[in-house]
Amino acid sequence: MIRLAIVGLGKIARDQHLPAIEKTEGIELVAIASRNATLEGVAHFTSLDELLASDVAVDAVALCTPPQVRREQAALALSHGKHVLLEKPPGATVSELAPLVAAAQASGKTLFATWHSRFAPAVEPARAFLAEHAPRAVMVEWKEDVRVWHPGQDWIFEPGGLGVFDPGINALSILTRILPNPFFLTKASLGFPANRDAPIEAALDFADSTGVPIRAELDFLQTGPQTWDIHVETGAGRLTLSLGGSRLFLDGKALIEAPEAEYPGIYKHFVDLVARGAGDVDLAPLQHVADAFLLGRRIVVAPFEG
Amino acid sequence: MIRLAIVGLGKIARDQHLPAIEKTEGIELVAIASRNATLEGVAHFTSLDELLASDVAVDAVALCTPPQVRREQAALALSHGKHVLLEKPPGATVSELAPLVAAAQASGKTLFATWHSRFAPAVEPARAFLAEHAPRAVMVEWKEDVRVWHPGQDWIFEPGGLGVFDPGINALSILTRILPNPFFLTKASLGFPANRDAPIEAALDFADSTGVPIRAELDFLQTGPQTWDIHVETGAGRLTLSLGGSRLFLDGKALIEAPEAEYPGIYKHFVDLVARGAGDVDLAPLQHVADAFLLGRRIVVAPFEG
Repeated sequence: MIRLAIVGLGKIARDQHLPAIEKTEGIELVAIASRNATLEGVAHFTSLDELLASDVAVDAVALCTPPQVRREQAALALSHGKHVLLEKPPGATVSELAPLVAAAQASGKTLFATWHSRFAPAVEPARAFLAEHAPRAVMVEWKEDVRVWHPGQDWIFEPGGLGVFDPGINALSILTRILPNPFFLTKASLGFPANRDAPIEAALDFADSTGVPIRAELDFLQTGPQTWDIHVETGAGRLTLSLGGSRLFLDGKALIEAPEAEYPGIYKHFVDLVARGAGDVDLAPLQHVADAFLLGRRIVVAPFEG
Repeated sequence: MIRLAIVGLGKIARDQHLPAIEKTEGIELVAIASRNATLEGVAHFTSLDELLASDVAVDAVALCTPPQVRREQAALALSHGKHVLLEKPPGATVSELAPLVAAAQASGKTLFATWHSRFAPAVEPARAFLAEHAPRAVMVEWKEDVRVWHPGQDWIFEPGGLGVFDPGINALSILTRILPNPFFLTKASLGFPANRDAPIEAALDFADSTGVPIRAELDFLQTGPQTWDIHVETGAGRLTLSLGGSRLFLDGKALIEAPEAEYPGIYKHFVDLVARGAGDVDLAPLQHVADAFLLGRRIVVAPFEG
């Protein structure tokens, strides 16, 4: 039984991690490290340092803190011999992950950089379909209202918070899993609110190594219906992953409509990784975001007041 | 004898590549592909396509074009069975390199992503010194006048042109070679001229995996003396690489003052790589730049009129 501590008891931890841990065999929540938030019946510490100095025994930590502080916490936990599960994105930079991977390997502990959208039910069937039927063109629409999904989470618009790429990286985590060839950015524009340090909209053009065009449109101010769709044109029809990968359609006909179970999938995989002494760190989605900041043209858009 | 074509006969090709090729055994210049520029006595084509369709036999191409167009040229050359030498930076994104590396490996051809500053004479001695004497703190000052060194090169301030990171990446290519531990960005600010799409100044704070602080200050508007210095505090004194790695000092006492020979070093290494059927692609310097764009706070500074 893996004795787990959650570090950072914020919205994602409460909405997703707690119920998923509850449902997963082989892992149990024994502690919370969070500045203010507490959970009834679970040992509470105000910081990871305090937790590690205590006599509460933990085998693993799930880092649900903002990405800007995650690296230091991961390094600390690994140096104390703990397995580490990282919420997405796995860090504030790509380069900071290599030393963490090396530390995990040196200590024989599991480091798992999670991409929750990859555990959506339509993802593996889409991957299998596209291995058989080559994509000809890809269109991503990822449009949600930050005011609904991230109320008060100002860190998202701080440097390293990714802005609209915080949801957009979910689309990239699916794309890098389901497309049969590697791809890369060819052109991008990023809209930065005049009063913020991260983009609130983005238009991205990628190509894969065989020339297939991939277009992604990200918007963080979408009102009305929210859109998390990926459309892939193939010789066998138009494949659509809808609602963040939870539904799969071929030419509009439903292939898969399964209940959402991303986080239970994450924790099941974590328990399995720990049992096998393995790790799972794929940086491709974060790499694409870094590339978008590197190559993208910056456009100043209206201030965002939240 | 490697029959080489230069693609993009601009300033760096004329100033550095031509004399270096002339000096290097085992390689000869047989063609130029450049929109307008020609070289007396050497076959000229207006594009790489035209060159590859001609009956001039070439074994390798050196891509001296701006980074925004290099990937497509590299992919084309590799698909025609040519070895490829890439000027720095190796591309406009990090992700675009993986398919090129795979293509080179599949065809048994050499892909060499050059970092010319790594061939400066002080670099390998500095690396050896720092393997013996651990760094305690690192300070980089990389300050030059873009108007002197890049006259009319507007691509530098276009998206993907890197701005002040075009020289700054040279410092990062040295740092990633000489420091004994991997490092990563913790904080950055990038100054973008109001009328340009790439930064003209940057202040970067890194840390290595053992906590050693690394500070880098980049400026593209330096008048008067130009500065390309790296200072490393160690228990055995202060090591200084000066003038872009061409001189090495310990507590101010000169250890090495050798003539500059970066590009001859590059071509010697390229001839050796081709002979061994090997490649050499280290993306760490470009990764750090992408991380700086990802994590850095953007500040708008005075317009740059060139």
